[in-house]
Amino acid sequence: MILTVTLNTALDVTYRVPRLVPHTSHRVAEVSERPGGKGINVARVLAALGHEVTATGFAGTGPAGTLLRGLLAEAPGVRDALLECGGDTRRTLAVVDAASGDTTQFNEAGPLITPGEWSAFLRRYDGLLRQADAVALCGSLPPGVPVNAYAVLVRGARSAGVPVLLDTGGEALRRGVAARPDMIKPNASELASLTGSREPLPATLDARRRGAHAVVSSLGPNGLLAATADGVWRAAPDRPLSGNPTGAGDSAVAGLLSALVEGLDWPERLSRAAALSAATVLAPAAGEFDPRAYERLLAAVRVVPE
Amino acid sequence: MILTVTLNTALDVTYRVPRLVPHTSHRVAEVSERPGGKGINVARVLAALGHEVTATGFAGTGPAGTLLRGLLAEAPGVRDALLECGGDTRRTLAVVDAASGDTTQFNEAGPLITPGEWSAFLRRYDGLLRQADAVALCGSLPPGVPVNAYAVLVRGARSAGVPVLLDTGGEALRRGVAARPDMIKPNASELASLTGSREPLPATLDARRRGAHAVVSSLGPNGLLAATADGVWRAAPDRPLSGNPTGAGDSAVAGLLSALVEGLDWPERLSRAAALSAATVLAPAAGEFDPRAYERLLAAVRVVPE
Repeated sequence: MILTVTLNTALDVTYRVPRLVPHTSHRVAEVSERPGGKGINVARVLAALGHEVTATGFAGTGPAGTLLRGLLAEAPGVRDALLECGGDTRRTLAVVDAASGDTTQFNEAGPLITPGEWSAFLRRYDGLLRQADAVALCGSLPPGVPVNAYAVLVRGARSAGVPVLLDTGGEALRRGVAARPDMIKPNASELASLTGSREPLPATLDARRRGAHAVVSSLGPNGLLAATADGVWRAAPDRPLSGNPTGAGDSAVAGLLSALVEGLDWPERLSRAAALSAATVLAPAAGEFDPRAYERLLAAVRVVPE
Repeated sequence: MILTVTLNTALDVTYRVPRLVPHTSHRVAEVSERPGGKGINVARVLAALGHEVTATGFAGTGPAGTLLRGLLAEAPGVRDALLECGGDTRRTLAVVDAASGDTTQFNEAGPLITPGEWSAFLRRYDGLLRQADAVALCGSLPPGVPVNAYAVLVRGARSAGVPVLLDTGGEALRRGVAARPDMIKPNASELASLTGSREPLPATLDARRRGAHAVVSSLGPNGLLAATADGVWRAAPDRPLSGNPTGAGDSAVAGLLSALVEGLDWPERLSRAAALSAATVLAPAAGEFDPRAYERLLAAVRVVPE
């Protein structure tokens, strides 16, 4: 199975309003809630691709955590191996302006994780690694978790011989990269913050020198740029797409990891990741993907050596 | 005791962000939650004034309703006589921009109330009226409650001989007024929507002709304008105030109702309502009031016959 780790799970709430006007009052006609946090999104896409997948990390025992786990239980194919924590799971709110389609996002910080809860998680993680073919470490760290958390988890995976992909930003990424994960998947802003450069190619190569065995940078409409031991490639659909980019990075992670587990080579991994990512942008609901659009896009993605 | 009715209770959530920028992502450093809905706010102010107060209406058995009741139990002096409903209590979200102090508000619609739940509420209400010295009917109607709900509740109070104040807007107000409540407290926009006029004095007099025995219009910085059987008055502090107007109308309702129960005359009722309202505007937390500011403002409010 593939293991996804979401230390800072979230109950993702979406409010749809006719038009967002700051400093006024809005009636919210449509509210939707779904289990979230990057690793949870990755797990859902992996399950949709037919992979056996287990989601771990923390979930609170309060209202948001309880609802998250209830909704996760309804999602087909994702095994819930989340660990309970005393604080409640955070909520994230996306306010979608129906007029423009634009989204305004509010992200709560997450519960305070105690040292005891963190130790308990490390034991749970070690146990799950024994059954894992690959692991994805995804998203922000909740308060209380040590800032070198991802370095610890990367080293755990590497000593268990399990390929590990790290998808995070800021200091958590900087520390995690130094532990030499098999892959990282920074977006443009995470890449710039890691390397100090806003030029994708030099920054991607620099990120690799900092410790990651492979770096796959997700560059929005410009697709993916991968620096690996086997070569450097760009992967993107043959023409630009417009839609909702929410969750496109998580779909790319699911594409990379599933293709790795299936023994595909780098160009094939990148085709899949770019096609899944594009299918997510095209889907009407944020973070979903349309399997038929995915099949179609798989043929339309161009992977070009740099 | 004084009874407050909140058919559409809410869990009021406040997000504080450094600056609200539409169509970007915000980290929310500070989240606060409190029991809300206009009648719940009125009940809290009445309790702070030393009155015995019972809050009824609907609360869901889901996460938001459970949290609402837990927080209400911690509020001193308010007896919880809310009726359980199958749908969950709505949330309202106030996003406070720390740079400007301005608030952007998102209000969910509320749970669907079934005909059986509405009948059960009417029985509960009739029982509570027998112990009530006055009743306030406050806020919007949740889906499923008949649009003439307030007319039914006003008639119930009047036949039980209990003075009744109605504070709502739109069609619910229009229907409720026709049942001849003792008082209504529209704000400027509710008044305009009821009467079609944006001129406060003619609109307030017109609202009274539509059936309310007394109309107290809350006009923001311009204070209160009251049309009653005893005369017409304006009441406002001697100089303009700036602050957060959230909850100022609910404090005015609590002032009017407590003064009525204490047998005070109209000028005294209006002094109290205007002072409480102003003290709420001045308080740092939305919907709270500072008792010392209230005492000071009571001396500074001018009630002038029109």
